[in-house]
Amino acid sequence: MGESETPGKLALVAWSDDLDKAWPVLILATTGVAAGMDVSIFFTFWGLRLLQRNDKRMTGKNWMQKMLSIFNRGGADNLKLHKLNFAGMGPWMMHKLAKEHGVASPQELLELAREAGVRLVPCQMTMDLMGISREDMIDGIEQPAGAMSAILEMQEAKATLFI
Amino acid sequence: MGESETPGKLALVAWSDDLDKAWPVLILATTGVAAGMDVSIFFTFWGLRLLQRNDKRMTGKNWMQKMLSIFNRGGADNLKLHKLNFAGMGPWMMHKLAKEHGVASPQELLELAREAGVRLVPCQMTMDLMGISREDMIDGIEQPAGAMSAILEMQEAKATLFI
Amino acid sequence: MGESETPGKLALVAWSDDLDKAWPVLILATTGVAAGMDVSIFFTFWGLRLLQRNDKRMTGKNWMQKMLSIFNRGGADNLKLHKLNFAGMGPWMMHKLAKEHGVASPQELLELAREAGVRLVPCQMTMDLMGISREDMIDGIEQPAGAMSAILEMQEAKATLFI
Repeated sequence: MGESETPGKLALVAWSDDLDKAWPVLILATTGVAAGMDVSIFFTFWGLRLLQRNDKRMTGKNWMQKMLSIFNRGGADNLKLHKLNFAGMGPWMMHKLAKEHGVASPQELLELAREAGVRLVPCQMTMDLMGISREDMIDGIEQPAGAMSAILEMQEAKATLFI
Repeated sequence: MGESETPGKLALVAWSDDLDKAWPVLILATTGVAAGMDVSIFFTFWGLRLLQRNDKRMTGKNWMQKMLSIFNRGGADNLKLHKLNFAGMGPWMMHKLAKEHGVASPQELLELAREAGVRLVPCQMTMDLMGISREDMIDGIEQPAGAMSAILEMQEAKATLFI
Repeated sequence: MGESETPGKLALVAWSDDLDKAWPVLILATTGVAAGMDVSIFFTFWGLRLLQRNDKRMTGKNWMQKMLSIFNRGGADNLKLHKLNFAGMGPWMMHKLAKEHGVASPQELLELAREAGVRLVPCQMTMDLMGISREDMIDGIEQPAGAMSAILEMQEAKATLFI
């Protein structure tokens, strides 16, 4: 383990809801846990959509927030590619290739992370900004928290990644 | 504080000039200072535009640099969204939602960061590449520095984030 | 060097194959080595394309993988800009500005990194997913590795950046 004796903490910030970013976040989180680390993911801005329930189509309390949710659908099953999206064909191909090569889907990885004890922390400010309430999100996640909570995680972490 | 006794250093690299990336950079920076950390932000590539004065419309010494500045306007008040930009309507909505929920604007956060002692470091190479001079940027920032300076910050930092 | 006695390790994750992201990855890597650090780059997802040989036009074992390689050409000489790409004019301008200001190209920096002892590690899962084989990639790189290998690097690193 080099300079230290314990595997230590891994602090991830999930800022994006792109399919190709959700993968590294969730693969690093689950691998970190497998390596004995204490892993937390702070879901902020677009990243908060990863914690949204797949069956929640529209979220938000006013028309602007509702509009955001329409153009930017949440849920780990509904992610788009950062590029080469090709009106949905890109993600379809990626999922198909992933399946053929035994790579778990973001939805499967998210469930695995939760079961393995990765702390999934929704950003309170993003919830307010986008009008996403606790009921819009999946079960088994932590209490909503703010930037100060994220900073404290980073201070104790062996490694911090903003993805 | 866990393994250490002091809050330590936080080294941020601001690579992007997207509105949705400027927010996490500046919120983490100001929160880090509030937690007692010594915070620096290295503004590089597109991120350098965050330090540009809002009233500087065009920058650059040759036509290519001027063209870059036209298509990629600088200044913390003029940022676009990474996605859902909708020809300017996305940022307008985001600013409106932020105001309603008490989230400070990037411009306000940048001023707060400067006052609170966050070291704002412009990347010299980017200044050269894009033809941005010291006069194009806001007051109260550090001397331009290079990648070696950023590396030395990272070596001493508790956490390093590339945003 | 602050809290420690040796420059330590720098763990970079290269996720993107954008020209404007390849630059910071490779500039930080080579600067890190110059500062005495032990530097590794884990090339994953789109980032794996940076290790692709410039003369390999098409890669992949099935039609989907081949299609990906056509729309997303690999090789350090063939990178596009994250934004302002302007159908290829943006990268041309950036390369021209870089040359005028003495900034090395990604191809030159990649070769320098390899010579200077930066460990270039291709992500095995991405190779499988995209159908990129060892022969599609440049010489002098490390054995393909997985996420666990990346996590172990991060545990020992002074700084970890996801770019």
